Amino acid sequence: VSQSQAQALLVDKGNHRHFMAKEIHEQPEVVGHTLASLVRFETNEIELPELPFDFAAIPRLTISACGTAYYAGLVAKYWFERWARLPVEVDIASELRYRDAVLDPDGAALFISQSGETADTLATLRHCRDQGQAIVSVVNVTESSIARDSDLVLPTLAGPEIGVASTKAFTAQLTVLACLAIAAGKARGVIDEAREKELVGALGEVPRHMASLLRDETPYEEVGHALSKARDVLYLGRGQSFPLAMEGALKLKEISYIHAEGYAAGELKHGPIALIDENMPVIVIAPRDGLFDKTVSNMQEVAARGGQIVLISDAEAGEAGCELAGHLKVPVVDPFVTPLIYAIPIQLIAYHTATLMGTDVDQPRNLAKSVTVE
Amino acid sequence: VSQSQAQALLVDKGNHRHFMAKEIHEQPEVVGHTLASLVRFETNEIELPELPFDFAAIPRLTISACGTAYYAGLVAKYWFERWARLPVEVDIASELRYRDAVLDPDGAALFISQSGETADTLATLRHCRDQGQAIVSVVNVTESSIARDSDLVLPTLAGPEIGVASTKAFTAQLTVLACLAIAAGKARGVIDEAREKELVGALGEVPRHMASLLRDETPYEEVGHALSKARDVLYLGRGQSFPLAMEGALKLKEISYIHAEGYAAGELKHGPIALIDENMPVIVIAPRDGLFDKTVSNMQEVAARGGQIVLISDAEAGEAGCELAGHLKVPVVDPFVTPLIYAIPIQLIAYHTATLMGTDVDQPRNLAKSVTVE
Repeated sequence: VSQSQAQALLVDKGNHRHFMAKEIHEQPEVVGHTLASLVRFETNEIELPELPFDFAAIPRLTISACGTAYYAGLVAKYWFERWARLPVEVDIASELRYRDAVLDPDGAALFISQSGETADTLATLRHCRDQGQAIVSVVNVTESSIARDSDLVLPTLAGPEIGVASTKAFTAQLTVLACLAIAAGKARGVIDEAREKELVGALGEVPRHMASLLRDETPYEEVGHALSKARDVLYLGRGQSFPLAMEGALKLKEISYIHAEGYAAGELKHGPIALIDENMPVIVIAPRDGLFDKTVSNMQEVAARGGQIVLISDAEAGEAGCELAGHLKVPVVDPFVTPLIYAIPIQLIAYHTATLMGTDVDQPRNLAKSVTVE
Repeated sequence: VSQSQAQALLVDKGNHRHFMAKEIHEQPEVVGHTLASLVRFETNEIELPELPFDFAAIPRLTISACGTAYYAGLVAKYWFERWARLPVEVDIASELRYRDAVLDPDGAALFISQSGETADTLATLRHCRDQGQAIVSVVNVTESSIARDSDLVLPTLAGPEIGVASTKAFTAQLTVLACLAIAAGKARGVIDEAREKELVGALGEVPRHMASLLRDETPYEEVGHALSKARDVLYLGRGQSFPLAMEGALKLKEISYIHAEGYAAGELKHGPIALIDENMPVIVIAPRDGLFDKTVSNMQEVAARGGQIVLISDAEAGEAGCELAGHLKVPVVDPFVTPLIYAIPIQLIAYHTATLMGTDVDQPRNLAKSVTVE
């Protein structure tokens, strides 16, 4: 029985109102499964299949994808550069394909797609293969076109994802990419075994932290209630929280039809702050990492202009230094894994906002689950 | 008398209602001046001062800036990659500084800032200098901090820009960057003299085309009238028109307080198309270049979902293949220079929308002309 048959036969919503809710709640499990396929937990070491290129030899990695998978790629860029000192270029697939990108002759290219059938991503993969790039893909459907055309497939073990707005596939993609970044760091001599064990250990804690976040959705219902009256939202983050801000905005766009936009927190004062008034809620993703103070300072500029702020952080509300319209508390985790953990609040915010607004969460208007046209 | 004193003494609005209008209309002149400083028109050849690095020897160019200058950098990436086969990484200054970017030991870094005092850009410049990068800056104020800390300054000869929303500084930046890309292409043996003359010739035509666009603003007033009732707008483009879409959205944000967002046209179907209804005008930048058919196809998807479309193009309305709420006709130009030409319509759209809404166009709320804090 192949996976797609299983998909048709076995999928139901369980005790959840929507597939999206079920898939959000499956994340501790699917992240755990995906991790188990790439990690030897006895020693906290990464164990990958043989790669079609040598991380120590490639000058650069090109990542390409669309939508949510593109944001997973943007997070991975921060990881590869921080932990493997490997330059990474991430591109929207429909852009990379047509922009005469300069690819290193010995380069490697990585493609991310839930369905493995995304037309733009597939076309870009073939373009890169024609340019002599070694091709690795991260897909959820292993008998897909993208998988078939890759030198190596690293599957996400997320199981069938039915909700059009991607949730568990995103965190499963992040899981694979995090393991790949650690492997790259080791291959390039940037991290030693002790650091590898530490990072893998942090990944191993992710399912538990996710489960604790999913235990009480009341705070997300409350924030969703406030957001359901908004027509526009800004989402802010710095560093590896910047792609999360864009993904959070995309989730709101997709299922609540609220015009949310993700912005690098530091860019706000270079224009978009003109939008701020009491009608534009601003959601700030600010783990207490090295960028916390900078992000908080940008947040205070918003507050000073009457913006209603929802803070997602492991910090206490008192540390914000300004009034908060909402405070979503996240467990303290290793800074390496914050993108995986903070994915849960942004999904729950979108989900509860949309259900309160009465939209069709699993089948939002105008959207297809797998985009097989250009 | 230094330039800043001149700025205080000599600047007035001329016959215009706002500094922004005056500055929009100065563009044929300032682009011409800037060009004349970098081009020998007798032979249509680029003539640059001596660079602190050799374009043929650098493996990559890092560009960093904020706001509008960042979008100028994104356009330049397309130019450098297309015409010089030089890989370029463009980063928001507040992001590059803190993200542990991997810089090539023999690399060069380029910074763009109107004021030359942008705090994030200056800090990032110093970070890159500390990492051994050769530093070139494109600034409008040559006695600025960024200019002082650079190995080479390529000034934009835009004159004082008073309107907070950048207009003539943007096109002057694009002019310098286009010349630099041609020089890079020649140094790297990618373009020959004949191609150089052709590209420089196309740049030489820009002031004339800009002036012809500025002769009749009635179509922009009409579009502005329709947009002034909108609260949200999407701006679409592909390839080198993608950064223009983001810049067009930024202009609307800054002075009309409309929540406009720029998107790569090919990404629309991966989420944001859920936002489309008759209340969300969609402005499409689609020069009749190699990407025209792809962009038009994305535009038709929007039209099929009830979206009100304003097309900015050299194509006739009949070529759109769908109903248009507005059609802003642009002269036919060499594809190389479309970002310079299409900058005018996006500025005029924002200007007329904002003046019809009665906002303070020259001093929009919450914004400072030069952002000297992080």
